[in-house]
Amino acid sequence: MPVDYQAGLDAAIGRLHSEGRYRTFIDISRHKGQFPHATWHKPDGTEAPVTVWCGNDYLGMGQHPAVLGAMHEALDAVGAGSGGTRNISGTTVYHKRLETELADLHGKEAALLFTSAYIANDATLSTLPKLFPGLIIYSDALNHASMIEGVRRNGGAKRIFRHNDVAHLRELLEADDADAPKLIAFESVYSMDGDFGPIAEICDLAEEFGALTYIDEVHAVGMYGPRGGGVTERDGLAHRIDIINGTLGKAYGVMGGYIAASARMCDAVRSYAPGFIFTTSLPPTIAAGAAASVAHLKADSVLRERHQTQARILKTRLRGLGLPLIDHGSHIVPLIVGDPVHTKLLSDMLLADHGIYVQPINFPTVPRGTERLRFTPSPVHGPREMDALVQALDALWSHCALNRAELAG
Amino acid sequence: MPVDYQAGLDAAIGRLHSEGRYRTFIDISRHKGQFPHATWHKPDGTEAPVTVWCGNDYLGMGQHPAVLGAMHEALDAVGAGSGGTRNISGTTVYHKRLETELADLHGKEAALLFTSAYIANDATLSTLPKLFPGLIIYSDALNHASMIEGVRRNGGAKRIFRHNDVAHLRELLEADDADAPKLIAFESVYSMDGDFGPIAEICDLAEEFGALTYIDEVHAVGMYGPRGGGVTERDGLAHRIDIINGTLGKAYGVMGGYIAASARMCDAVRSYAPGFIFTTSLPPTIAAGAAASVAHLKADSVLRERHQTQARILKTRLRGLGLPLIDHGSHIVPLIVGDPVHTKLLSDMLLADHGIYVQPINFPTVPRGTERLRFTPSPVHGPREMDALVQALDALWSHCALNRAELAG
Repeated sequence: MPVDYQAGLDAAIGRLHSEGRYRTFIDISRHKGQFPHATWHKPDGTEAPVTVWCGNDYLGMGQHPAVLGAMHEALDAVGAGSGGTRNISGTTVYHKRLETELADLHGKEAALLFTSAYIANDATLSTLPKLFPGLIIYSDALNHASMIEGVRRNGGAKRIFRHNDVAHLRELLEADDADAPKLIAFESVYSMDGDFGPIAEICDLAEEFGALTYIDEVHAVGMYGPRGGGVTERDGLAHRIDIINGTLGKAYGVMGGYIAASARMCDAVRSYAPGFIFTTSLPPTIAAGAAASVAHLKADSVLRERHQTQARILKTRLRGLGLPLIDHGSHIVPLIVGDPVHTKLLSDMLLADHGIYVQPINFPTVPRGTERLRFTPSPVHGPREMDALVQALDALWSHCALNRAELAG
Repeated sequence: MPVDYQAGLDAAIGRLHSEGRYRTFIDISRHKGQFPHATWHKPDGTEAPVTVWCGNDYLGMGQHPAVLGAMHEALDAVGAGSGGTRNISGTTVYHKRLETELADLHGKEAALLFTSAYIANDATLSTLPKLFPGLIIYSDALNHASMIEGVRRNGGAKRIFRHNDVAHLRELLEADDADAPKLIAFESVYSMDGDFGPIAEICDLAEEFGALTYIDEVHAVGMYGPRGGGVTERDGLAHRIDIINGTLGKAYGVMGGYIAASARMCDAVRSYAPGFIFTTSLPPTIAAGAAASVAHLKADSVLRERHQTQARILKTRLRGLGLPLIDHGSHIVPLIVGDPVHTKLLSDMLLADHGIYVQPINFPTVPRGTERLRFTPSPVHGPREMDALVQALDALWSHCALNRAELAG
């Protein structure tokens, strides 16, 4: 009897439906110059105006004239794609300039571009064991999927320490061979709760145990530090980190990812990581836009400050209503619902009845039982948009007779 | 004594230098409207005009007005980046239109976009064992690095069959449990030799043994078939393939990758692949440019025909000089040198003395001992550029007293 592949697919998809976590993509077009306003293209072909409250273009740089100008210019100068891998005709002045800009941002000798921060994490973390045979990677339990994939990929030694638990990390370090090469991998801002990693304490442990440090600053670059160098810049710790990972697709508003590190480290990863070597490089226009965005946010702190202010205002107002908010002092505003079906329902009602777009966040992005709505206030959200959101949430929480504060972290 | 990480990096980089395969990226800016002409930005800060002979923008679509117009327009309408993952605010009409365009291209129900064809291969092939527990993947020995990474990633069962050897594939299929789910993964055009996969024979075996089929058409889409649907379209075999993988970064001249398959298959991969779920989606401008390119090449065969003609002319002329050419009838023109140091030297001399840019191809991209120069003639290379290349190669082969034809495949 032949294998029934259709049944296998149906079962896999059916599991998601039965757990209430089947994802339906919402088709949205933002309007340049009018962020966060957008048009929702409904499945039935009709359209409706919406306000986006869940994007990761945290500062609205995706519509900044400096970014768009650089992109138009590069398109006109050199065309659409790069035409090759970095090694085979795909390195341009735009890539080199962006790498120089990023190395400077983090005070490192060099930087290395990848097509995404996902692949930067995956490719770098899976390549390091080739460079340091016997490497043990100590990985925070809540690290992003891309780091988990990278740590897992080559079957090297790994230890998972409880989230932000430096005592547990110390135990694990003490239990291993003192002479083994080691790497501690963690994040500066964990995007789903918005809490910060204990960077200084981890650097202390790394020094004590002779370990390398690897930090994911994807939800911090552009937004923290006097020049947007992330939490490591804000806290004066960048020099204690061996490899900083960042993205050009969130606060910088474009696309792509990178690592910043010593020249030798970047050279070795560049030379040994299949995910870097065997893929077409970023289009020059993307590199040009990203470089303009990084340069702009180095010099201008206005958007960064307004961003933090907006997050504080929204959190204060939601707290005033007694809603179950998680607040660790970052720019991320999660409201815990705690059930995938309720979360989806709230999201659907916000979209259909209030023109407010916030995606439900469910497993595996967050642990089961902590399903949530995750708001990303930004400098482009005005008082009117904020009022509309707060009033809608207040009404819906009452309407659905949901508990207030009970589930808050 | 602390671990000496610097020494580890130095050793890793030193190995490449000692084997003559340390890669130095050449910094090139193509000029829109003047492809294949470009400017070489030398390390010393000076510049020189060059002709690019190794790009993968096979048809010159990276400078096509339809592509650039669509990209400018999308930039002006919706801004730079998408601002989120596909699930969290990062799905736009541009992504949906492109997926519809690609599904239609291959005659499949659906298509799924990834940020690159590398990640499309890696993510899809590593996710299929989750959908079909116990899946055995049969993988051609010369499959691309991204397929190898995907097959390896989750430690599922795999069998490597000798390149294009259907008898060996049959042996392997016969040796396994008849009831186990199976997948055969291979390519339509192998990019380093330019030879074709035995698609019909593999489909026959897949039917006989109840296996799924997965084909990488990265070096064929846009270039083969009446509408650019690849070799599977040219040979009328697309309906026999379960999953077709393609790129938007080579013949289509932009960036990104995809799979085309049944709606259920795309839905399941979409729902279970971390490399799809947890990454910022392609910028709308990239999706818009790619869609314009795919649509253009569906309707217009002129570039495709000129491309094949150019490849035939170049091969005829190189063969006339007795140079060690590999010719399998595709658009790819490899000249075997067989030694990494000689290959690099030839490449350096072509660039410095003749203004001809062709990157040396060495291990691990090709097996050791088959190091080569790989030329990619295209419709944008005129008779003057072709003359210059042929004369330079003739002179250099004589100058370096290299054997002619001896190493040809």
